[in-house]
Amino acid sequence: MAVGKGEMPKFPFIEGIRLGVAESGIKTEGRKDLVLIELVQGGTIAGVFTQNAFCAAPVTLCKRHLEELISNGKPVYLLINTGNANAGTGQKGMEDAISSCQFVASQCDVKQEQVLPFSTGVIGEYLPIAKIEKGIPQVKADLDKNNWLNAAEGILTTDTRPKGSSVQIEYAGCSVTINGISKGSGMIKPNMATMLAYVGTDASIPQPLLQELLLEISECSFNRITVDGDTSTNDSCMLMASGKSLAPAISKEHSDFPKFKQALKQVFVEIAQAIVKDGEGATKFVSVIIEQASSSKEALDVAYTIAHSPLIKTALFASDPNWGRILAALGRAPVDNLDLSVVDIYLGDVCIVQHGEKCANYTEAAGQAVVDLDEISIVVQLGRGDVTETVWTTDLSHDYVTINAEYRT
Amino acid sequence: MAVGKGEMPKFPFIEGIRLGVAESGIKTEGRKDLVLIELVQGGTIAGVFTQNAFCAAPVTLCKRHLEELISNGKPVYLLINTGNANAGTGQKGMEDAISSCQFVASQCDVKQEQVLPFSTGVIGEYLPIAKIEKGIPQVKADLDKNNWLNAAEGILTTDTRPKGSSVQIEYAGCSVTINGISKGSGMIKPNMATMLAYVGTDASIPQPLLQELLLEISECSFNRITVDGDTSTNDSCMLMASGKSLAPAISKEHSDFPKFKQALKQVFVEIAQAIVKDGEGATKFVSVIIEQASSSKEALDVAYTIAHSPLIKTALFASDPNWGRILAALGRAPVDNLDLSVVDIYLGDVCIVQHGEKCANYTEAAGQAVVDLDEISIVVQLGRGDVTETVWTTDLSHDYVTINAEYRT
Repeated sequence: MAVGKGEMPKFPFIEGIRLGVAESGIKTEGRKDLVLIELVQGGTIAGVFTQNAFCAAPVTLCKRHLEELISNGKPVYLLINTGNANAGTGQKGMEDAISSCQFVASQCDVKQEQVLPFSTGVIGEYLPIAKIEKGIPQVKADLDKNNWLNAAEGILTTDTRPKGSSVQIEYAGCSVTINGISKGSGMIKPNMATMLAYVGTDASIPQPLLQELLLEISECSFNRITVDGDTSTNDSCMLMASGKSLAPAISKEHSDFPKFKQALKQVFVEIAQAIVKDGEGATKFVSVIIEQASSSKEALDVAYTIAHSPLIKTALFASDPNWGRILAALGRAPVDNLDLSVVDIYLGDVCIVQHGEKCANYTEAAGQAVVDLDEISIVVQLGRGDVTETVWTTDLSHDYVTINAEYRT
Repeated sequence: MAVGKGEMPKFPFIEGIRLGVAESGIKTEGRKDLVLIELVQGGTIAGVFTQNAFCAAPVTLCKRHLEELISNGKPVYLLINTGNANAGTGQKGMEDAISSCQFVASQCDVKQEQVLPFSTGVIGEYLPIAKIEKGIPQVKADLDKNNWLNAAEGILTTDTRPKGSSVQIEYAGCSVTINGISKGSGMIKPNMATMLAYVGTDASIPQPLLQELLLEISECSFNRITVDGDTSTNDSCMLMASGKSLAPAISKEHSDFPKFKQALKQVFVEIAQAIVKDGEGATKFVSVIIEQASSSKEALDVAYTIAHSPLIKTALFASDPNWGRILAALGRAPVDNLDLSVVDIYLGDVCIVQHGEKCANYTEAAGQAVVDLDEISIVVQLGRGDVTETVWTTDLSHDYVTINAEYRT
């Protein structure tokens, strides 16, 4: 199950970035499970990672390698395996992550530090390192700049469909392309970045600016989605700039900078929202919008209290405009001295609570018409300030329980 | 569905407390939905209530009346209706709560302030006040000291079975009885008290000590259970002492005081745990025990992160010892500078994580044997101090989704 059609863009290639995919047998027979992404010499790369204290071995190693790479402009290889998260695997897990990088380094004739490892799948089992070693010549042979769709499929786990976005703009009169792919549908409550996302552009972007853009934009895209409130051990989001476009290097001073930033943000938001729409068992895409908060933290505290309430999520699954549950969740949100008499709540554009009480004009039919839709917004106006925050989430369905009860069987 | 047999005690009567039950038609035909409890003149009463900012009208009114009652020793009537929470109902909700109290006051020839109102059920609909008015002569006529089991049934909503506990001890050589009943199975993450609980004793307890005991004991019973993390708008827990036992007034200085307190705690814990075991869709009763924490808050933060994780709860439903999900939840818990290398995790008495890594001796078969049981404990040793906290919760099953998706249909 998933919300909407999830159509994929027709990806243009990005000069300077090639992608290869293989079936290495880590997952079930005949499923793509190994992806290699190559960033050309002279490109720049930035990453944000999970803040889960139990982060996986590849995350630790990836951060270490990334630090060495940031200043040297050498070619970079990103190796992604699905079917196994290499998390909770201790010292052996770290050795396996290093081995994976060494295999790629030796095949591609680069140093081990030029390889960034990513893993996603079951936690607590050792990486099937022999299968990965065997798969690496295959992914290398498959490297092609026209392989974005294949790679989007190759990084999936419990996802029901690939996720991608592509935007082209003019910068200083030259064409610039941005492609993005992502995966993830459970254990989604990113804290820095979601499960896995890779965004590439042919623009030339100095590394410090690339990192700054990634931090700012992932904060208002991946850090605003939640399926189940469970932050993964493996979340990683990478932004690559090959510098092969004819456009001059991206600069904050250029008049086209806002346009570029907006385009980049569009790609991030689309591939972040695609994860929610394909959330485990999702039948609804829900925007929780908190307005008139006194701070961003307060708005997000309220938004997540609503977005994580199992009672609200099951009511949405049933297309039940049970606004009492929204009111109850708001009432337990960690907000000091909440004055109910100024709170308004809307389902879509239907006012359900006005000044803390059921709106006089509200009818069950009006509320029903909103929750019957696939895409629903819940708007809470706190009357405490002028800060707005939006969080995207899903309903809670039978399929969510089925998927997660049967995950390892 | 529910965990275990949920057998009810054979309640002895408590001199000075009478209970009456009626079918007033608020809920479906033929269901008990109105309960009246009478506490004799000279008794004492104490209460703790939800901290949800959107607390229901009866909660607000009950707190107001209770303050007037605390010092005057007059008879008290507790009126409980199910099928409607009278929450989110604004000024009219308050007027309806006042009317309910007035009906009882006039029938029982007491002042309105001697009546404490309690409501539980759907949020956001007005109280069917005519039905309640009609039911009050019935509950009054039914008042009987042998009616504890009937009352336990009369306060139920989505519960599948009544909940009660009874203990008798000797205090200063005289028999003292404690009976308790409770209701609740969804919107359970009490913050002061759970949905509804009524505990009565024939002991004589001065009101300040009664309030002190209630606060201390509800903290380690009702405030340690969670089904879905949703704090209700109506949670109320009342403790009544009729003083009709032959024993002298309970005093902290008496050598039997620890025994009395332990007996009272036993009743509270049993009726609190009964709510979890009858949690919506529950098939497992799960004790989350956090040891070696540096503070109670830290232990509870970790415990609730685990107890509310939908991924852990669905794995438990499937009897899947998916310890990776416990590790991932622990990793995202709000604990500063968690040192994984000293963390141990047990499923029952089976060590699954030692010094932050999969335990060398762990076998899937050993983990499976633990999660196949109906009652499971998850023990996390943080290695940061000597504080222990325990939280009780359930799994997350298909029935949870069904019950909550179909609640209003």
